[in-house]
Amino acid sequence: TNMRLDQKLWPLLCFLLLRPPPCSSSNILVVPIGGSHWINMKMILEQLHSRGHNITVLRSAKSWYIPNNSSIYTSINISTLADESDINYYNKMLQDVMECRTYPTFIRTFCQQYLITSMFDQGHKILARSVATIIEDTVFIQKLQDTKFDLMLTDPGLTIGMLLATYLELPIVFNVRWINTLLTPSPISYVPVSGSELHDQMDFLERIKNMLHYLYNVIEQHLIINPAYSDLLQQHFPPGTDLLSLQRRADIWLFRADFVFEFPRPTMPNVVYIGGFHCKKAQPLPAELEAFMQSSGEHGVVVMSLGTLISVLPRKVTEAIAAAFAELPQKVIWRFVGEKPSSLGHNTLLLEWLPQNDLLGHPKTRAFVSHGGTNGMYEAIYHSVPVVGLPLLFDQFDNLLRLKVRGAARVVEAYSLTKEGFLGALKDVLENPSFHTNMQHLSQLHRDKPVTPMETAIFWIEYVIRNKGAPHLQSAGFHLPWYSYFCLDVAALTIALTGLFIWALVFVCRLLCCRRSKRKMKPE
Amino acid sequence: TNMRLDQKLWPLLCFLLLRPPPCSSSNILVVPIGGSHWINMKMILEQLHSRGHNITVLRSAKSWYIPNNSSIYTSINISTLADESDINYYNKMLQDVMECRTYPTFIRTFCQQYLITSMFDQGHKILARSVATIIEDTVFIQKLQDTKFDLMLTDPGLTIGMLLATYLELPIVFNVRWINTLLTPSPISYVPVSGSELHDQMDFLERIKNMLHYLYNVIEQHLIINPAYSDLLQQHFPPGTDLLSLQRRADIWLFRADFVFEFPRPTMPNVVYIGGFHCKKAQPLPAELEAFMQSSGEHGVVVMSLGTLISVLPRKVTEAIAAAFAELPQKVIWRFVGEKPSSLGHNTLLLEWLPQNDLLGHPKTRAFVSHGGTNGMYEAIYHSVPVVGLPLLFDQFDNLLRLKVRGAARVVEAYSLTKEGFLGALKDVLENPSFHTNMQHLSQLHRDKPVTPMETAIFWIEYVIRNKGAPHLQSAGFHLPWYSYFCLDVAALTIALTGLFIWALVFVCRLLCCRRSKRKMKPE
Repeated sequence: TNMRLDQKLWPLLCFLLLRPPPCSSSNILVVPIGGSHWINMKMILEQLHSRGHNITVLRSAKSWYIPNNSSIYTSINISTLADESDINYYNKMLQDVMECRTYPTFIRTFCQQYLITSMFDQGHKILARSVATIIEDTVFIQKLQDTKFDLMLTDPGLTIGMLLATYLELPIVFNVRWINTLLTPSPISYVPVSGSELHDQMDFLERIKNMLHYLYNVIEQHLIINPAYSDLLQQHFPPGTDLLSLQRRADIWLFRADFVFEFPRPTMPNVVYIGGFHCKKAQPLPAELEAFMQSSGEHGVVVMSLGTLISVLPRKVTEAIAAAFAELPQKVIWRFVGEKPSSLGHNTLLLEWLPQNDLLGHPKTRAFVSHGGTNGMYEAIYHSVPVVGLPLLFDQFDNLLRLKVRGAARVVEAYSLTKEGFLGALKDVLENPSFHTNMQHLSQLHRDKPVTPMETAIFWIEYVIRNKGAPHLQSAGFHLPWYSYFCLDVAALTIALTGLFIWALVFVCRLLCCRRSKRKMKPE
Repeated sequence: TNMRLDQKLWPLLCFLLLRPPPCSSSNILVVPIGGSHWINMKMILEQLHSRGHNITVLRSAKSWYIPNNSSIYTSINISTLADESDINYYNKMLQDVMECRTYPTFIRTFCQQYLITSMFDQGHKILARSVATIIEDTVFIQKLQDTKFDLMLTDPGLTIGMLLATYLELPIVFNVRWINTLLTPSPISYVPVSGSELHDQMDFLERIKNMLHYLYNVIEQHLIINPAYSDLLQQHFPPGTDLLSLQRRADIWLFRADFVFEFPRPTMPNVVYIGGFHCKKAQPLPAELEAFMQSSGEHGVVVMSLGTLISVLPRKVTEAIAAAFAELPQKVIWRFVGEKPSSLGHNTLLLEWLPQNDLLGHPKTRAFVSHGGTNGMYEAIYHSVPVVGLPLLFDQFDNLLRLKVRGAARVVEAYSLTKEGFLGALKDVLENPSFHTNMQHLSQLHRDKPVTPMETAIFWIEYVIRNKGAPHLQSAGFHLPWYSYFCLDVAALTIALTGLFIWALVFVCRLLCCRRSKRKMKPE
């Protein structure tokens, strides 16, 4: 019975055989986030569909990313929800962030955080109103209830999912990029708060900064996010419900993290790591693109993409990038929308869309110029392609920092980008072999898993369906008020008792001393 | 490609096919603990051996549990090590613990803890001297170095393993029942310290008790355990090495926990849960035993065993147990050493040894009377057999508490055991169907895993060998001094700055007030 298989064969066999038979087909309600998050979620939905589950996706009627018609799911369209792909909005935000980046290190992350908070402030008010509309539509709710869903699969970033799941009393599986710092043990001495641009080895000042970020998150949660929902929650939910208590209901957090990328951090047993679950082998390229790749000869190709949200970089920046590319012996494929830069070299191919995963997995690819979106970073790790980072928004600064400290990326600031600086970083990554070696090491570790991250994700989704939740994996700390959770009550009593003891000691000493001195003073 | 297999077939297929090909055969050095821990470790060694690894076991030359001659490993005998199976020692300890149990709840766990500390105090001094002898034997150390071991597999409870691994600069995998509270984020508000007999939902007083247990552990570590090794570490190890820093070196902690049993707690990513990995399907019983089982008819059988360490319960207790058994309609199989109780009924079979796993997996078995050893508890869960607990030593009180709060066990105190009390608990577990139902639920959850715990254990052992360690999974908090780790420095600065700010505010206010009042006082 000691059958041994070839290294290349067994992942395939596992994929075919490991999967337990699906629980009899279930009804899964999905509330996805658009953009790159949707690319992720869709791949999970494809798997769930192929395993016989019925999927219903709740989407904005105006959504640009999430199609209305699909062979794998039924759509429910919500007209009150905003479209998540307002390109102008993100382009405006990019300007503001680049402004922030000019401030000193200690301040700029808070400046960026504040921009996100302003965005949240608007967004959450709209979301709360949408959910109120949905819940007050009794016919619609009755229809949802009649469907007898077995599970809500959602990202807590779009709060509709957990609000509806709680209202309909469904088990919840989260598909998340970030674990909520306020809900998970996150010792601020070595777990950098997201958005802080800190790594896990912090000096005293950095730990202070991390604490400030943590406190900022607390304030944001309680002064900005929670109030947006207070009317909704008061009217339609049991007393005491707030947004954090809704997140605490989650049975499983599918955490898109892998510790070749993420810094080691503690998590509760209902957190399942699925980082890089979307990565897959490269498919053959279209003929022209393949010809372009081959034409690069021994020098290979640099691939550049800034993701789905940003369409326009400042003119000055694109010109500098194009000019730097023009000086490379490599060929370049650049995902580019907008006016063609005047300094563009003959070696550079502009494309409005590119098959990113297939290009990164191509043997001619030598480097990846990226904004640092999470999906792209895991694809770069999976295919061992070193990165030149050009972070623009959100978690992209944090993401690139993670590759940088592992010697697998160089990071360039967009606001101060010059041709020379960018070219220097590019040449460093292309010519210094350590970047590729480090990336290969990360790739090897990342692929070394007992079960693929995708199979892990599917297993735990079906686990929650099979077992109607997973309350035995939830923290008992959730039932405590915050001062008990952080042991402040126990600490206060300890300090008080110690104080009392010292005071009593001093009191007794004085009493004894006084008596003695009185006795001394008394004439014999 | 959407092959689906029968529910019963796929675990077998996984077992055969999932296992990656072994890394080319490696040399593994093992320092096991005896007793029930050895039963566990041996099963892992059998797997590793079948996958082609060369195993060397370092054992006490006097060891009773760990055989010298084996077809799966080579032995290294250390004559200075004590035998771990001094039955008289544990019988004496049982008397002391039973004395402790008569004290009020709040005190008794500390009393027990103190007994363990006294045991540690002796044990660690002996261990430190043994390791010094080993290290000073340069011929022996050279021999070990020449073998070029790839890994140390050990339990940190027996410190020799990690001391040798550090000296020989080997990667370490721990096989542990308890995670060190001082090394893992263990919020004392909802993570009960081992030995505290608390569960995860604690009231204020219980949290105080938990904190005291935590502080007790801190004191024990620094005043009892660390000093025992200070000479050894000063002479043979780099400056600053202490017993905690050795544990921090561990690449993977194989944690014998499953959260159907253990309370949910945070852990770092280098902690791998393998609780119940030793459980397996029941094998057919010997013919006479099978006949005895069948003779029980519809009533079934009660199985009783108090584990490997304790041979003699007080006479009064065994008489009461025997008398209670005699009144049951069930048949009873009792693992028993010593003088036969006079009150023994005709339904009770005494055996000096019993095939515990096969009996628990037998369809006639209705209840398990157990001391609450970890192995037995997982076997009871695996085979869905409810438990009547008779905790005697160590973690047995904690273990049984875990099953009790889940409605799968009744617990009886040995020191105050009466026939009536014991019979009541037995009848409750046998007649109230909720115990069996709850155990079945735990069993179902326990078996619902993407990979078997044994395969998980083997995967991570080979992972560390393949990748020569797993430093990317280790906490960055380990490099911080304790006051930074617990953020006390950051908190102190924050409090100081807040204080300074308030003081400045008061100062300025006073200044302004004074000036105004002076102005008022000044005659116009």
